[in-house]
This record gives sequence, structure tokens and C-alpha cells, in this order.
Amino acid sequence: MIKKSYFYKKTILNLLKNASPTDFFHQITDGNISYLSRAITLVESNNVKHLEKANQILELCLSNANKSIRIGITGVPGVGKSTFIESFGKYLTNKGKKVAVLAIDPTSTMNQGSILGDKTRMESLALDENAFIRPSPSGETLGGVARKTRETITLCEAAGFDIILVETVGVGQSEVTVHSMVDFFLLLKLANAGDELQGIKRGIIEMADAIVINKADGDNIKKVNSAKTEFSRALHLYPLKESGWAPKVTTCSALNNVGIDRIYEIINSYVNLTTKNGYFYTKRNEQNKHWFFETINSELKKQFYMNSNVQNALNIFLKKIENQELSPFSAAQELLKIKH
Amino acid sequence: MIKKSYFYKKTILNLLKNASPTDFFHQITDGNISYLSRAITLVESNNVKHLEKANQILELCLSNANKSIRIGITGVPGVGKSTFIESFGKYLTNKGKKVAVLAIDPTSTMNQGSILGDKTRMESLALDENAFIRPSPSGETLGGVARKTRETITLCEAAGFDIILVETVGVGQSEVTVHSMVDFFLLLKLANAGDELQGIKRGIIEMADAIVINKADGDNIKKVNSAKTEFSRALHLYPLKESGWAPKVTTCSALNNVGIDRIYEIINSYVNLTTKNGYFYTKRNEQNKHWFFETINSELKKQFYMNSNVQNALNIFLKKIENQELSPFSAAQELLKIKH
Repeated sequence: MIKKSYFYKKTILNLLKNASPTDFFHQITDGNISYLSRAITLVESNNVKHLEKANQILELCLSNANKSIRIGITGVPGVGKSTFIESFGKYLTNKGKKVAVLAIDPTSTMNQGSILGDKTRMESLALDENAFIRPSPSGETLGGVARKTRETITLCEAAGFDIILVETVGVGQSEVTVHSMVDFFLLLKLANAGDELQGIKRGIIEMADAIVINKADGDNIKKVNSAKTEFSRALHLYPLKESGWAPKVTTCSALNNVGIDRIYEIINSYVNLTTKNGYFYTKRNEQNKHWFFETINSELKKQFYMNSNVQNALNIFLKKIENQELSPFSAAQELLKIKH
Repeated sequence: MIKKSYFYKKTILNLLKNASPTDFFHQITDGNISYLSRAITLVESNNVKHLEKANQILELCLSNANKSIRIGITGVPGVGKSTFIESFGKYLTNKGKKVAVLAIDPTSTMNQGSILGDKTRMESLALDENAFIRPSPSGETLGGVARKTRETITLCEAAGFDIILVETVGVGQSEVTVHSMVDFFLLLKLANAGDELQGIKRGIIEMADAIVINKADGDNIKKVNSAKTEFSRALHLYPLKESGWAPKVTTCSALNNVGIDRIYEIINSYVNLTTKNGYFYTKRNEQNKHWFFETINSELKKQFYMNSNVQNALNIFLKKIENQELSPFSAAQELLKIKH
């Protein structure tokens, strides 16, 4: 029995290893999760050959993509993101939807153990055959992590997932990054003083299409409702979004599965409005162009700073700037000449 | 008489034209405004020879720079920036300080007439021999405008100006840019509802070392004082700055020269605190490094997008992305290959 399973696994691995991009494409669009996972691994690899293969698979998959709704979910640690995604994800699979859960977490570079983490945090969703949970890729930079997640979205869409949830920790720039790859941006909040202002301060509220105040349960309900009023009032001060959409504020208890249906209703009204007025497609096209230029810019920098002449001279120039021997502008011009 | 003046002007122009970088350096450090102005014109030029000469002058001047206080001043149109700078500038020259007023206004690219504008807006300061007003350079991008202003600061410092005021319109990214080249960032505000929240929203309050509520005169005083209370309360919610400085809120009437001394006191306490704890120099060093990397990054992009192969292919690739024939990532990789 053990032997059979061993041979079975080995056969699958060999199949995957020898599969052509076209094989991948057919298996992925047939909903074969082994091939999907392996293709994501290729996307996440830093091996040049793997990346080439990944690019070929992605190009084939592009034609099958774009039929999903991409939803970004953010919120500070402790807001109950995992419980929310578990509850919302189960709600969606119960409705017959296929749900992929991805993440952008630049900190996950540190602990490779986050695969286990993500799946145990969403135990019941992880066992659901209509759900696919993939932890944040590890990479050196937010940009690298983001590119990988962005390409994984395309693969999941080709594999027939209707809803793509992209989770991010509410820290630093990662929300901005997620915002640039999703159709709808959902901000999870808790009802407690101070937190409200912090959100405004960091400009995240401006990006939100919906603010969902979680933990509307037990003694907390009153506080949650008054937070809802406060946020609704604050949102009125912002100008109407380019999408024509007025962001909504709602409450839920992810723990007790209360208010989840209302969130799905809100997302559907958004999609209806923006597919009608065309913003949905305009935004996706703008996002693609954004990623195109972003990739070029980061590659240009990478190529420059990886150049050995540049690497040897960089610290000397930084020292000269520090010692006021060179202006930052002259130093930049001289370093640019050195590369050639 | 007219003839004499004509010949005099011509002689000066010839002198300036034939002056070596060392001549410039000596004249500028002697406080010769004609040479200072001409050097700024070289900095602002897009002619490669001019820029080379400008760089040589800048390098000589660097050793004499850094003895000033650089103050950024921002605020939405209508807040009374010109009146404030006139009032504050006169206060400083009366104290025996030499004051340079520079600006970063990317919109000034549109109307070359802003020289006249700036000087007539600050009539009495413009006539003050201890003040030097230079309008925003015109350039294609905020980055270009910013580089020129940043280098002009160095020239003004070498010319012995003690206080450099850098004004910007309260629009878009220009405040962030000014913030990256000044020691102290002053936000001018008006007391009116709505405006407060907008400031928070755009993250500018986070950058401010002082918020000055202007137009504390006549019927307005009560409103200004309550705005002061409100801002002070809001600032308490932000964490302490890296500088160790707790931003201050104060009020003034630039029109009636009331409250101007208090602003100068605040700036001096900031300078005392940060020179003692070392943050003043750390920040300047960080700013220089920032400009170094910024210049490299923008030059890399410029070189790439100016390449004729890239220019010819760019629109084809954008079209392919729009038609979903290529992923933004593959398109970027292919375009990068085309340059070589």
C-alpha cells in the first residue's frame, strides 16, 4: 500500500516535470489542481528556465482568464481576517462558486512555515473541494511577491475559479499593491476608538469599496453600530469615485456567519454597476498597464544595480555624498556613466 | 545714459559668459547676485554644456553649503502663502537674516509669466536687498523641477543665505518632493470645516513639523482658535516623529504681522532639538541619498524610453496587453529584450 502510493506520487511528479506548456494549459483549464499548483510553483521560482515555462503557460491561460471577480481583503492584525475569509469563502462555495484564496504578505519571506499557517487558520475552507488556498509566495521584495500573486490570479482564473480573494496584512505598502490587482477592495475594521483615524491617516479608506466592521457579536454590537455611523459619515466627505460607486459601510460577525450575505450583495451591486458603465474593464486594463510599467521599472533598476561595476562603485559614491564631496546629482550622473 | 546702461549690461553678460566655474564660486560666495542668478540659469538649462558647468560650480559650492535652515511651506491656493512669505521673510530680514525664496510648482511649466507673478505677489520682500526671490524653474516633470530647485538651494547657501524658504502649491505630489529637501516643513491652513479632514486624508499633516492657521484676524479669530484646538487634538493621535519633535500648532495673521515671531521660535526650537540629537544631519544625509537614487532611477527610465527601438515597439505591446494577447509581465520582458 505504501509502495503504491509512493509510485503514484512519483508518477505524478514525473508527469508534471515532463509536461509541456500546452499540457499544463489543458490540465489547468480542466481544473486539475496538481497542475495548477505546479504551475504556480513555476511562477514562484527564481530559476530562469522555470520562469520561461511559466510565461508560456501564462500566455496560453490568458485567453481563459478574466471571468472572475477579484476581491482584495485587508485589515490590521487581530481584525479577524482568517475567520472572515473562512466564513465568506464557505458562503461562496455553498452558493456553488469556486473560490481561490491568495495572499500578499512580504513578511512571509521570513517564515516558510506560512503554508501550514494559512491552511490551519482556515480549516474548513481548506477541506472544501471548491476552494483552493495558496499562501503568499516568498520573495525578496514586495514587488516580487506581488508579481507572483498577480500571475497566480491568471492561473486560478484559467482553472475556473469564480472568485479570487487576495488577502494582505494591513501593514505598509501591501494594500496599495493589492489594490492594483483587484476589482473590489474590502477593508475589514474593528470598532474601537483611534483605529478609525488611523485608517483615514494611511489613506486606505480612500481605496476601500466597502468597509466591513467585524466582530458584530455579543457585547460588541452597540460599539460596532456606532462605528458604522461614524465611518458612513466620514465616507460622505470624500468625492465620488471614478467608478461611480459610493463605498458602502456594513457590519458582520464572521464568527457567527452573520452579515456575510449582505457583503456579497454589495460586491454584486458593484460589479453590476461597473460592468454596465464600463469601469470594470477600464480598471483591469489600467491595472495591466500599471504592472507592465512597474515590471519594466523594477527590471531596469535590477539590471543596473546587479552590474558589477556599479556594485563596486556604489559605496564609494555614497561615502562621497556623505562627506559632501559630490552632490547627489553629480554622483548619480557619474555612476550612470560607470555602467557603460 | 541709456547707452552707458546698455554697455554696462553687455559687459556683465560677457563677464558671466566667460566666467570659469572657479570665478562663479568666488563671486557667489562673495554674495554676487548676478553670478548667483546666472548659475541658477545654468542649473535650469537643458543644454548639456550648461549642465556640465553647473555641476562644476555646484561641486565647488558644496563645501560652503549646509549652513542654512531650509523651510518648506505648503498650503492650498487661497491660504495666503504669498502674504505669509512676505510677512515671514520681512520679519527674518529685519532680524538681519538673508532669505532666499524658491518654489516648486510643476504647473509653472505652463506659464512662463510666473516670474513677474512671484515678485509682484511679494512686493516689499522683492525690494529687500537681503532677500532673493526665484520663481519655480520650468521643467517637464515634477522630478525635473525638483532637481533644479534642490541644486538652487546649494547655490543660495553658498551665497550666504541663512534661511531658504521653499514654497509649493498644495497639489498632488509636490509637497512630498519639497519635504524631501527641507529641514522643517510648515503647513499653512485656514479655519474652515472640511478642510481639516482633507489635510488628514492626503497625508500632509503627517509630514508637518508645524501647522500654522493663517488669517487669524477680524471676525475670523474665534474660528481659527477652535481649529487650533482641533488640530492639536488630532496631532496627539500620531506617533512621535523620528526626529523626537512633537509637531506644533499655532496661528497667525500674515496680513497684520501677528504671530510671526512665534513661528520663528518654533522653528528655532526644532533646529536646537534636532542638531542636539543629531537628527538634523541624519535627515540631510538621508535626503541626499534619496536624491541620488531618485536621479539614477529617473535617468534609467529616461534612457530606456528614449531608445528608438523601445519607442517603436511600446504601443504595439500596450495594444497586445489590451487585447489579452500578452500578460503585462511577458510584455515587459520582451520590451526589455528589444532595447539591446
